[in-house]
Amino acid sequence: MTSQDFTDTSGRPGTGSEGRAEILDAAAQSFMEYGFNGATIDDVADRIRATKGRVYHYYRSKIDLFLDVHLRAMGIMIEAVRPVAEGPGTPAERLHAMALRHAHAIMENFAYQKVSIQGLEKPLISSRGARPNAMIEKVVALRDEYESLFAGVLEQGSAEGAFVEAPPRQLSKPVLGALNWLTLWYRPELSPTPETREAIARNLADFVLRGALRRPDGKADGKAGHAG
Amino acid sequence: MTSQDFTDTSGRPGTGSEGRAEILDAAAQSFMEYGFNGATIDDVADRIRATKGRVYHYYRSKIDLFLDVHLRAMGIMIEAVRPVAEGPGTPAERLHAMALRHAHAIMENFAYQKVSIQGLEKPLISSRGARPNAMIEKVVALRDEYESLFAGVLEQGSAEGAFVEAPPRQLSKPVLGALNWLTLWYRPELSPTPETREAIARNLADFVLRGALRRPDGKADGKAGHAG
Repeated sequence: MTSQDFTDTSGRPGTGSEGRAEILDAAAQSFMEYGFNGATIDDVADRIRATKGRVYHYYRSKIDLFLDVHLRAMGIMIEAVRPVAEGPGTPAERLHAMALRHAHAIMENFAYQKVSIQGLEKPLISSRGARPNAMIEKVVALRDEYESLFAGVLEQGSAEGAFVEAPPRQLSKPVLGALNWLTLWYRPELSPTPETREAIARNLADFVLRGALRRPDGKADGKAGHAG
Repeated sequence: MTSQDFTDTSGRPGTGSEGRAEILDAAAQSFMEYGFNGATIDDVADRIRATKGRVYHYYRSKIDLFLDVHLRAMGIMIEAVRPVAEGPGTPAERLHAMALRHAHAIMENFAYQKVSIQGLEKPLISSRGARPNAMIEKVVALRDEYESLFAGVLEQGSAEGAFVEAPPRQLSKPVLGALNWLTLWYRPELSPTPETREAIARNLADFVLRGALRRPDGKADGKAGHAG
């Protein structure tokens, strides 16, 4: 899958990718700040000092724009994580590298990921407009594909005895939860340096790796706590 | 702190607690399904076959109702988790018990917790009405108090050498993230039995405990993956 697959260009009047990208960035910011209901095409246009007409040149409606933010958000994650998920190394090494990249991708594309994590459901339920089902299905398929990258590595690690035995989706949920929680507590304006971000990413990656690893002493429940 | 502290009765015209509780349950459902913007006092009244007047007898506005759902949501969590956080046992035993209770409390009070996790920010930003600051401060204070229960136990465990060394908030974030992610993937209609819930809660509690525990072999990074 190439990066082209991550934005929807089917049947759109405008195709210039620079123009689209700028609009999409502004839309991600607007949805992040005001939510689906509060965001407006006017606000998106204002952010890039453009006219509403220019936005409508690329996107037919607010829903279109919202769904394209979701597609792009998932595309960013898959592009960041797939190479290490499918690369060389033990499952533990790959899980750690995937978690690092996942955390960095959230921090570096904060508006997209924050909108993405909020999910599609509520805005589309409350929206009165027609639902472009093909795009919704694409977003859902990308989500599944992304979770499968984690579930696959976790399954390998369990099979090899490095990770605890558990159905892979039972491990991928808390792994992704620990990582995605970043979208709720990270404050871009307070953590501007690459070093801060690296420390946050490493802390999360170490945590989820420990969570997945089988303990050499075989203890993984409440009874394991009697240290020393 | 008693359960009375978790709903706001100051200056409200109605004080009958049964009537309030029924309205609050309906409001939690409505906010969960439609979000802050989509939910209406009409919908809340319809759900309990009451008049809007009866809702306004207890709550002045949708914001009031929304904030009281948040207060109650935090109250449920603190009441469930505090006794084991401050009870006997090693930090590892207590962390595991806290995580179990936290997961069960989410599943048993799903609408409240799902609304609570969405947060206050966006609805109050987009809302044009006056902001009842005292209630917002109370919600924020309860959130901090709740996270402190986890941070405190994690800090003790680190000090005793059972948990990895990390500033406590660096561990409490992924712990709460792994647990709270439940509000995004749990489907009450698909997991109705106590056994299913117990399995989900135990799986999460085991994960976060492993994530916090120092490994006896001292390995906690990507290099730890070369299993036996």
